[in-house]
Amino acid sequence: MACVRALRRTDADIKLIDRRNFHLFQPLLYQVASGGLSPANIAAPLRSIFKRQKNAQVLLGSVETFDTVNQKVILEDQTQVSYDYLLVASGSTHHYFGRDAEWEHLAPGLKTIEDATEIRRRILSAFEKAERTNDPVARAAFLTFVIVGGGPTGVEMAGAICELSRQTMKNEFRDIDPSSARVVLIENSKLVLDRYHESLSIAAAKDLKALGAELWNETRLTEIHSDHVIVSQSGTPKRLDACTVIWAAGVKASVLGKKIAEAINTPECIDRAGRILVDTQCSIASHPRIFVAGDLAAFPTADGKSLPGVAPVAMQQGAYVGNLIANEIRGQRPVKPFRYWDKGNMATIGRSSAVVESGRMRLTGKIAWLAWLFIHILYLARFENRVLVMFQWFWNYVTRNRTARLITGEPNDELHTK
Amino acid sequence: MACVRALRRTDADIKLIDRRNFHLFQPLLYQVASGGLSPANIAAPLRSIFKRQKNAQVLLGSVETFDTVNQKVILEDQTQVSYDYLLVASGSTHHYFGRDAEWEHLAPGLKTIEDATEIRRRILSAFEKAERTNDPVARAAFLTFVIVGGGPTGVEMAGAICELSRQTMKNEFRDIDPSSARVVLIENSKLVLDRYHESLSIAAAKDLKALGAELWNETRLTEIHSDHVIVSQSGTPKRLDACTVIWAAGVKASVLGKKIAEAINTPECIDRAGRILVDTQCSIASHPRIFVAGDLAAFPTADGKSLPGVAPVAMQQGAYVGNLIANEIRGQRPVKPFRYWDKGNMATIGRSSAVVESGRMRLTGKIAWLAWLFIHILYLARFENRVLVMFQWFWNYVTRNRTARLITGEPNDELHTK
Repeated sequence: MACVRALRRTDADIKLIDRRNFHLFQPLLYQVASGGLSPANIAAPLRSIFKRQKNAQVLLGSVETFDTVNQKVILEDQTQVSYDYLLVASGSTHHYFGRDAEWEHLAPGLKTIEDATEIRRRILSAFEKAERTNDPVARAAFLTFVIVGGGPTGVEMAGAICELSRQTMKNEFRDIDPSSARVVLIENSKLVLDRYHESLSIAAAKDLKALGAELWNETRLTEIHSDHVIVSQSGTPKRLDACTVIWAAGVKASVLGKKIAEAINTPECIDRAGRILVDTQCSIASHPRIFVAGDLAAFPTADGKSLPGVAPVAMQQGAYVGNLIANEIRGQRPVKPFRYWDKGNMATIGRSSAVVESGRMRLTGKIAWLAWLFIHILYLARFENRVLVMFQWFWNYVTRNRTARLITGEPNDELHTK
Repeated sequence: MACVRALRRTDADIKLIDRRNFHLFQPLLYQVASGGLSPANIAAPLRSIFKRQKNAQVLLGSVETFDTVNQKVILEDQTQVSYDYLLVASGSTHHYFGRDAEWEHLAPGLKTIEDATEIRRRILSAFEKAERTNDPVARAAFLTFVIVGGGPTGVEMAGAICELSRQTMKNEFRDIDPSSARVVLIENSKLVLDRYHESLSIAAAKDLKALGAELWNETRLTEIHSDHVIVSQSGTPKRLDACTVIWAAGVKASVLGKKIAEAINTPECIDRAGRILVDTQCSIASHPRIFVAGDLAAFPTADGKSLPGVAPVAMQQGAYVGNLIANEIRGQRPVKPFRYWDKGNMATIGRSSAVVESGRMRLTGKIAWLAWLFIHILYLARFENRVLVMFQWFWNYVTRNRTARLITGEPNDELHTK
């Protein structure tokens, strides 16, 4: 999107190919998963975004393969789309450390709208099943929620489930006490948010515990089953009965990385995480007209690592590539390499609590939460969504209610058969 | 819900069993199907509605069968729920005139949230596929939408698709003109809205045509295929190429009707439409403590017919049964039979156009639309939803945009495979 926008004043003929017809504002996906917002509140139709940019055409399609010799993208029905310049920015997906087949269905991750509504369905159904059963062991397992991974998504998800069970659901059940639900955050390393400054990690841990979450640090997940997980703490296995497991741990690059490498016949252009190694102009060294941006790109940094897979990197790279192509169309290729401007990191823990770092500034508590609120409203793609989200947040803040708590989908669920 | 509420001041022990965890405001479902509103805007969690009514417990469950001898309801996992009084109000579902198996997947109806998002997916995907294809025949079929049934749902759905294609999608495509989409409303009888006063049917037809819909009256649908339908007009078959067919024709009673009849061993208590014949107190004559209300009940009227399957009948019957039980608990059964207070009918055709009849009053055009708007906002279950819906309507009215246009679900769709 940033690249398409940067090309708006050129006479380029732009095709934006996406599998989905909308842009998703992923940072708020956890709020859909916890029943606070509706999917449409954090999504905007691509067509409506680029309605006025006449040189851009949106095509709903899935890329099957690339033909870099003839400069064509091949879609799922063999439709061919020609290009002079190609930007691939298909992001990343969940990664279960080699156990995808076993764990994917037991522990859904949070990347798509469908993931979010599925997680919402599982969380809400668990409380419903706990209310229905008389077996105390089963009830405890229904009321135990395991979140794997203590990064921003894991922390936000854990905070949201704590609030849901302790505040939103208060007085709503008759046979169970929803506030007795256990929310267990499992993290390999010593601290949650381990890429943040240590003081913020400690503040986040404190706030999470205050909300009722249990932090199991230095804990490795070894097994997931439908009603329990097994973890390893300093080598000692430990069993935890839990029916709901949410994956917020690893991600891997989109499969299109491998397909580009195959197309250009250069297997060494992908790194171990499946990302494409790009040069300082975000292009593939051997193919200067093929660009890769965002989570799919491994962009080298000075310290020999690569830029993190976060939205600001993707947006800045997209705009950079757009400007570079615009310049080339005008007859000049800029030599200035891409520079990432790191505006900082933030994560919210719950009502009135967040952590923010930007440069040397570090905020925690209410002021960080207000900063988080402001930034997220600002980045939401469309004005209407901003008002809708603000109103719902205000309402949820005052009433502690969450109105988007719908159990939908999954027609093969035993309860919804006709 | 009306029955549970009517029992709020009694010391009854109430179990509200539903397959879904939310109450759905069905009259606005067509707006979800056409991308104007989000599912959560027209749904409210049952638990949150009855949070403060301590004598009521919500149970998420599906009724498997009834044991009327031992006064128990058996749920899907064999859980038994005992009762002294039983009210069954499980409504109706689509009815394809004996061709359910063939037609259900080709022409989804509009009863549940999942139906609405599926119809939304089909409508939006059809435009996307039309933009992608170069074949003029396929393109025309993608851009033809058939709505079967000219009742309120069919009229509202046809109006919404016309507005979507003519107003919302304006300028959003590059290779097709979405306003060239054909919206064909197929109706058996001579007029749309044939249960309304003739002047209103004529007004509705005029407004629908002005929006761009084609009305095929006195037309019978005989076949549905994935890319065309066959209709019969005065006995002459006619083929129409269309990839999207929406069912707004017949409904049949919920399967629980048959299950009650089996439980009480009285097959003659159900009518041809599968509804339970009730007496003037909404109970089954032979079983005065079993009540049936809403679409599942065939309540006799003075002219030998039965009350229509509309929401006001269900709500009034529910409240009546609740009051009757409350009276019995207090030791007196009222002899006053149930009387339906018909407040009238209304249907909206589109932006600024509706038809309303109440008693001898009949309204059309803008004033009817304002009345429709007011009543629907009034009946929306929760305050927050009212504000959200009002705001979105206002916004959609001004911008002619619809922001909830998400193609979601259907993981087996060729475009969404990973």
